[in-house]
Amino acid sequence: MKREWKMEYDTPADVWNDAIPLGNGRLGAMVYGHTGIERIQVNEDSLWYGEFIDRNNRATKDALPKIQQKILEGNMRDAEDLIAQYMVGAPNTMRHYEPLGELDIALNQHTPFIQSWIPNSDGAEAYKASLDLMTGVYTITHKQKGVTYKREMFISYPAQILCIRLTANQEGAIRLDLQMDRCKIYDDKELDARRPGKYKRGGGWAGMLLDQNHTWDDRTLLTVGHASTVEFASAVRVVSDGQILNPYSQLVVQNATEVTIFLAGATSNREKDPQSAVLHLLQEAEKKGYEMLYQEHCRDFETHMRQCTLDLGEEPNLSLEKRIEEYKQGKEDPALAALYFTFGRYLLLSGGRENSAAMNLQGIWNQEFLPFWDSKYTININTQMNYWPAEVTNLSLQHTSLMNLLSRMHERGKDTARIMYGCRGAVCHHNTDYYGDCAPQDCYMAATAWPTGGAWMALHIWEHYLFTLDRDFLAEWYPVLKDFALFFLDFLIEDGDELVTCPSLSPENRYICPDGFDTPICAGPTMDNQILRALFTACIQSANILGQQDDPMIKQFEETRKRLPENRVGSNGQLLEWREEVAELTPGMAHISHLWGAYPGSEINWKDTPDLWNAVRRSLEIRTEHDSGKKRGWPLAWFICQYARLLDAGQVGERIRQMLSYSSNRNFFNCGMVFQIDGNMGATAGMAEALLQSHTGMLHFLPALPSEWKQGYVKGLCARGGYVVDMKWENHSLIGAFVTAAQDGQVEIVGERLEVWDNHEIVQTKSTEYGFSFSVKKNHSYRLEPAKKAV
Amino acid sequence: MKREWKMEYDTPADVWNDAIPLGNGRLGAMVYGHTGIERIQVNEDSLWYGEFIDRNNRATKDALPKIQQKILEGNMRDAEDLIAQYMVGAPNTMRHYEPLGELDIALNQHTPFIQSWIPNSDGAEAYKASLDLMTGVYTITHKQKGVTYKREMFISYPAQILCIRLTANQEGAIRLDLQMDRCKIYDDKELDARRPGKYKRGGGWAGMLLDQNHTWDDRTLLTVGHASTVEFASAVRVVSDGQILNPYSQLVVQNATEVTIFLAGATSNREKDPQSAVLHLLQEAEKKGYEMLYQEHCRDFETHMRQCTLDLGEEPNLSLEKRIEEYKQGKEDPALAALYFTFGRYLLLSGGRENSAAMNLQGIWNQEFLPFWDSKYTININTQMNYWPAEVTNLSLQHTSLMNLLSRMHERGKDTARIMYGCRGAVCHHNTDYYGDCAPQDCYMAATAWPTGGAWMALHIWEHYLFTLDRDFLAEWYPVLKDFALFFLDFLIEDGDELVTCPSLSPENRYICPDGFDTPICAGPTMDNQILRALFTACIQSANILGQQDDPMIKQFEETRKRLPENRVGSNGQLLEWREEVAELTPGMAHISHLWGAYPGSEINWKDTPDLWNAVRRSLEIRTEHDSGKKRGWPLAWFICQYARLLDAGQVGERIRQMLSYSSNRNFFNCGMVFQIDGNMGATAGMAEALLQSHTGMLHFLPALPSEWKQGYVKGLCARGGYVVDMKWENHSLIGAFVTAAQDGQVEIVGERLEVWDNHEIVQTKSTEYGFSFSVKKNHSYRLEPAKKAV
Repeated sequence: MKREWKMEYDTPADVWNDAIPLGNGRLGAMVYGHTGIERIQVNEDSLWYGEFIDRNNRATKDALPKIQQKILEGNMRDAEDLIAQYMVGAPNTMRHYEPLGELDIALNQHTPFIQSWIPNSDGAEAYKASLDLMTGVYTITHKQKGVTYKREMFISYPAQILCIRLTANQEGAIRLDLQMDRCKIYDDKELDARRPGKYKRGGGWAGMLLDQNHTWDDRTLLTVGHASTVEFASAVRVVSDGQILNPYSQLVVQNATEVTIFLAGATSNREKDPQSAVLHLLQEAEKKGYEMLYQEHCRDFETHMRQCTLDLGEEPNLSLEKRIEEYKQGKEDPALAALYFTFGRYLLLSGGRENSAAMNLQGIWNQEFLPFWDSKYTININTQMNYWPAEVTNLSLQHTSLMNLLSRMHERGKDTARIMYGCRGAVCHHNTDYYGDCAPQDCYMAATAWPTGGAWMALHIWEHYLFTLDRDFLAEWYPVLKDFALFFLDFLIEDGDELVTCPSLSPENRYICPDGFDTPICAGPTMDNQILRALFTACIQSANILGQQDDPMIKQFEETRKRLPENRVGSNGQLLEWREEVAELTPGMAHISHLWGAYPGSEINWKDTPDLWNAVRRSLEIRTEHDSGKKRGWPLAWFICQYARLLDAGQVGERIRQMLSYSSNRNFFNCGMVFQIDGNMGATAGMAEALLQSHTGMLHFLPALPSEWKQGYVKGLCARGGYVVDMKWENHSLIGAFVTAAQDGQVEIVGERLEVWDNHEIVQTKSTEYGFSFSVKKNHSYRLEPAKKAV
Repeated sequence: MKREWKMEYDTPADVWNDAIPLGNGRLGAMVYGHTGIERIQVNEDSLWYGEFIDRNNRATKDALPKIQQKILEGNMRDAEDLIAQYMVGAPNTMRHYEPLGELDIALNQHTPFIQSWIPNSDGAEAYKASLDLMTGVYTITHKQKGVTYKREMFISYPAQILCIRLTANQEGAIRLDLQMDRCKIYDDKELDARRPGKYKRGGGWAGMLLDQNHTWDDRTLLTVGHASTVEFASAVRVVSDGQILNPYSQLVVQNATEVTIFLAGATSNREKDPQSAVLHLLQEAEKKGYEMLYQEHCRDFETHMRQCTLDLGEEPNLSLEKRIEEYKQGKEDPALAALYFTFGRYLLLSGGRENSAAMNLQGIWNQEFLPFWDSKYTININTQMNYWPAEVTNLSLQHTSLMNLLSRMHERGKDTARIMYGCRGAVCHHNTDYYGDCAPQDCYMAATAWPTGGAWMALHIWEHYLFTLDRDFLAEWYPVLKDFALFFLDFLIEDGDELVTCPSLSPENRYICPDGFDTPICAGPTMDNQILRALFTACIQSANILGQQDDPMIKQFEETRKRLPENRVGSNGQLLEWREEVAELTPGMAHISHLWGAYPGSEINWKDTPDLWNAVRRSLEIRTEHDSGKKRGWPLAWFICQYARLLDAGQVGERIRQMLSYSSNRNFFNCGMVFQIDGNMGATAGMAEALLQSHTGMLHFLPALPSEWKQGYVKGLCARGGYVVDMKWENHSLIGAFVTAAQDGQVEIVGERLEVWDNHEIVQTKSTEYGFSFSVKKNHSYRLEPAKKAV
C-alpha cells in the first residue's frame, strides 16, 4: 500500500502550465524538469509593476447623489453613463504582478543558449520526476550514456532561498551552462505557429526586461532591473567540486560530479537595497550548506503538511498524468482526490506564508509580463476562495498572509471611503493589488462599481477567530473589521424602509430592465445584504467578546442590520439575486453571488432556514440548466462547496470528478483560458466541507461524503470553536473520530449518538435536537465511536 | 485626370496593421478612423524601455585568440561553443521600443469605455477617409442621423504636436468622451479567440503601464509613467465651443459643434521634466490655434513632399483597398506604384526627421510592449534599407536622422572595440538600439558575432556626401567614418596572404562543414570584404577631399584594402558567399549578404566588373529557385534593387507587382509575420533605382523601367554628384529630362546622345564609351531631349 503523497512523472513538462510549482510564500518557481536545458521560471511575491498609486476619483463624491437618484428612479441608462464617467479610477486599472526571471541550466550541451534550444537531450532515458508534497522537495533522475543524473530542489522558507543539487554517478560527468534571463517566454501556440519546434526565444524576439545581468564574481550571477519604479534583484550562486568558468554573461561548470545552485530574489517593496539583500541571502545559504538547508526545510515544510492529511486508499503505480487520463476515462481512483486535496494544501503553504503577500490569482506563479487580470486580487470571489481551505484544513497560520493584504487595504480603503464617497470607515471595490489599492478597477461595469469587496475580505478576520478563538488576534484586528462595517453606516441609503447599497451590483451578473436595457447596476443586491448582515454580526459579537459592547456604534450596527433587505424567494422557488424578480441576461452566469449566504456565509443553512436552503438548491439547478458550474475552474469549485452545504453527497462526488477530469492539468493546475489557482483552492475547501462542517455551531461528520470515497482517514481538519477533528470511515460509515478541544466548553455533534471516550474514561453525552452534545476540556482529545461497536 | 497622391478608404481600419500612420519623426500615431470610438495609438521615438546599459562582455578579449585559432583550424564546433559563452552581451539583448499610449475618442456613445467597446456606430454612413500624402493631413467624414461629422488630423513638426479637429454640420451635435490609456491592446486573433467581437480590452485583461493618469485641469488629461528608468509623459488638451466636463479619469465634451484636441508626448531621454515639456507644448499649440498650426504644418510637410514626385498616370476612383484587391487580380494600375512610392517618401518624412531618432524596424509605429525584435535597429540589412530611398528620392535632410544614431554608435562602439576586442576605432555588431548600443545582440548565432554592422552604417556618411557634396558635413563626420574603419586595422587577422574578419559570418546564413556540422561562423565572408573595401575607399577619398591624405593611417587603409579577399565566382557561375565554395544549409536564404557589392554597394556593376555582375544574376537565380525573394517583405525589396542594378526591367516590374499584391496591407504597410517598414523603404528605393542610377559615376536614365510604367513623369530624383533629375517618358521612351547641377563640372550620361539646352542655348556634348558628356555650371538646369525631336 502506497501512501506517499507524491506527484510522479515519467516525462518533463513541455509547457509552463504543466511545470511543477515550488514556493515559500515569497519566492516561487515553476520547474519544467527538462533533461537538456532545464528551465526554472521564478517569481517573487512583491515584484509588481510600479509602486502604489492613488487612483481615487476626485469627482465621484459630487456626482454620487445624482447617481443614487437615477438608480432609485430606475433610470439605469443615465446611472450607468454617470458611473462610467465619475466612478472609475484614474488610471482605471491597478498594478500588475510580474515574473522575476528564469534560470536556465543546460546539462552537457553544445552552445546551449543559441537558437537551437534543446529542452530535452536525445538519448535521455529512465526519466523519473517526483514532487514530494510532504517535504516540498522535487527530485528528478535520468540516465544518459550510462550516467545517472539526479536533481533535487526545494525553496526554503527558513533560509528564503531556492536550492538545487545536481549529482552524477560518474565522476566529472557534469558540464552545466547557467544563465538568468527575464523576457517574454514563447513556449506555446504563439511561437509554435511561427517556427514550429525550434525556438524557445530565437533571434531576439523580445528583449530582456532587465537593467543588469552579468556575473558578480566568479561563481555568482546577478540581475537587477526595474518594473516601473520598483527595483528588483536576483542572484544565483554555484558551488561545485568541478571547475567553474566565468564568461561574464553566464556561468559554466565543467568536469563536476556535484553542483549546488542557490537562487535568491528581492525587491525594493521590501528591501532598501535588493542587490545587497540577495547577495546576503546567498552568503548565508552557502554558510549553512546544502545538507543543513535541506533538513531545515523539510522539518519546516513537513510540520505544516502533516497537520492535516487525507487518505482515500491505495495509489496505483502510475504517473500522475496517466492517472488523470484514466480517471477521465471513468476509472475509479479515490486516492487521486486525496492527492489533489494534499496538493491544494501544498499550494497554500508554498504560495502564502505568514510573512508573504496574499496569494494572488495565480498564487505566486506567473510567467507573463502582462498577465490576465494582472495576476492580482479579484475580491468578488477569487481571492477569498484562495483562502477557503485555510482554516478548515489546518493552515490557519498561512491564512495570515491574507491579513497582510487586508492591513494595507484598511489604510487605502479609508482614503477611498473619504475621497470617493465622503464616508467614514474603509471601502474596497471588486479588486485590489499588492498595495491594497481600494479604488475601482477598470471600467468593466459588471463589477467595477461594487462597494462590498472590502467587507467580504474583512470577514476573514472573523472566520480566523471562529476557528482559532484567538482573542489577541481579534483584539488586534477588530478595528479593521469595524472600519469596513462603519463605511456602510454612512454609505447605505434609504429606499422605502430598507437600507440599501447604492450604487451596487451582483458580481458579475446583469439583468434586463422593463424597457429591455440590460445592466448590472442596482441597489441592495442579495449578496450585499448577506455580507453586511454577517459583517455587522461579526462586529457585534466581537465587541461582546472584547468587552466593547457599549460602543454606541454597536447599537447602530444592530439597527442597520435590521433594515437590510431580507433574502427573498422567487416564482421558480429560487433565491432572488436582486431585490425584485427580474429577468437575468445570462441565467447560466458563472458567479452565484446571491448564494453567498449559504457558502462561504452561513445565514442560510439546513438547520435555521430550511426554506431558503431549498431555494439555494433551486438556484443552483437553474444555473446548471443554463450550463454554469458544470465543467471547470472556480465556478465548479464553488458549486462543490455549495452542494456540500446542501448535504448532497451525489452532486459533490460528481462535481469533484468533473473537476479532476476536465479542469486539471497534469500538475493539477486549474487551467481554463489561463491558470487560476482559486479553482484548486475552492475545490480543496469543498472536499473538506464534504468531510466536516461546523457553520451551524455543531460538528457535522462526513456530511456529504462522495460515494467514491468508500473508506478513508482524515486527520487534522479544523472546525469553528477551535476543534481539531480526525475521522476514519469504512463503507461510507464513520468508524471512529477524534475531537480535540481548544478550550473548555460544550460541543454538539450532528447525527446519531456516538460513544465518547476521554482516554480510558467514557464521557457523558446528551441528546439534542439534531444529535448529541458533551462537555470538553481544553487540550483534551476525545475518541468517538459508534455505539454499536462498543456493544 | 486625378493626381492627388491620396490614400482613400470607405471603411475604418479593423486592426492596427490597417490603421493610418501619421508622424513628425518624434511623435507617431496610428489612426483607426472608427466612427464610434476612435482609437489613436501613439508613439514617441525616444520612449525605450530603460536607459543605456553597458553590455560589453569583459571576458571576450582573453578568449578571442583561441576562438580565432579554432576558426582558422576549421574547428567550428569548438569555436561556436566559445563564442556562445564568451562573445555574448550581458544581458544578451538590448533595449526595446515601447508605445506611448492610446487616445480613445468616443463620439456620441453611451458609457463608451465599459465592456461593450463599439468601434463603429450603427447607422454611420457615407464614410470617407483620405490621407493626403502631400500635406500629411488625414480627413474622415461620415454621416449619422442626418448630421455630417468631420475629423481632420495631422502631426506638426514645427509645433511638435498632434492636432485633431472634429466638427459637425449641426449645432451642438457632438458629445465626446476622451481617455488616454497605455495597456496591451487586443484587436487581433488573440482576443477574438477568447471573446469574439465584443471587447477591446474587457475586464482588466491587462493593467495599464502608467503611473499617473487623470485630468491635470478642467480640459487637460496628463499621463506619466516609467519604462524601467525612463520617465515619459503625454498630455491631451481639449478646446471646444461646447461644454467640457472633468470627471477626473477622462474628459467629456457635450453639446459641441467643434472640438480641437492637442496631444503631446515627451520622455526623460530628451527632456529633464517630461511633464512640464508636454504641458508647455500644449500651451504653445493652443496659443497658435488650430488654423495657424494647420497652415504651418502643411507648408512644412508639402515642401519636402513636393521635392520629388512620381506620376505614372491616372488613378481610378476607388478606395485603396479595392485598388490593391483588383491589382492582385491582375488589373493594370501603374499609378498604384506611384502612390506606393509616394507613401514610401511619406513614411520617411513622417518617421525620421533631422531632430528625431533613426527610423527603427517599424519606423516609429509600434503598438507592442514586447515588440518583435524589440522594434529596434537590425543593422545587417533592415535599418540601412530604411534609408536607401533617402538620398535618391530627395529626402537627404531626413537621412540625417540616421546620423543621430550613428553618432551614438560611434561613442558606444569605441567602448565595445576596446573592451571586447582590445582594438582601436569603433565597432558595432548586427543590432543597435536608441542608445547606440554596440555589444552583440542575443545568442542567435546566425548573426550575433558579426562585427561589420557599424562599418556598413558608417558608409551612409559617405553616401550622403556623394549625393550632396556637402564638404562641411564630410569634415564633421569623417572622424566617425574613420573610426569604424580603424577598428579593422586592428581586428583583421592574417590567413595566408589575406586579411580576414574573424570571427565573422555572412548574415544570417549557415553553411555545412565537411563533417556535416552546420554553422554560420567563418572568417572573411564576401560581404565583409565588400563592405571593408568600400569603407577604406570612402576614407581614402574623404581624406583626399579634406586634405588629410598625408595621415599615415590612409596608407594603412590602402595596404589593408589590397589584402582583403577578392570576390570569387563558384562552379555554378554564382558569386560565392564565403571564401570557399561550401554547401549552404538554406540555399533559399532571404538574406543575400554576398551581393552587397552590387547593391547597396557599387563595386560590382555592369561597367567595371561584368563577370561578377553576371555572377550576381546567377546568385539571385539560385536563391529564387529555392524560393527566396519571391513573395514578400524586405527580401523582395532587395531583389527589386538588385534587378534594377542588373538593368532587368522585366524582373523589376514583376517583383514590384508581387510587392504591391502580396506584401501590402490596405494601408500599404509591409506586413509579413509582423509589420516591418524596411520592406516599404527598400521597395521605394528599388523604384527609384529603376528610374535613375548614378553608382557608376554616370547618370543613367530609366535603366530598368517596368513595362507597366508605359508613360510617366518623375520630378526631383537625386544622383551622386549632386544632380537633381526630372524625367518624362512615353511609350517607355524618354521624351525629356531636366538635370540640375550642384557644382561646376562635367556630367556623363549613359546611352544615346541627347540634345542639351541651358535655357535657350544649346550645350555642347561629346561622345563617351557608354554615352555622352557635357559641362555643367553650379545651380544651372539643363533640358535634355531626344535628338530626333529637335529635327
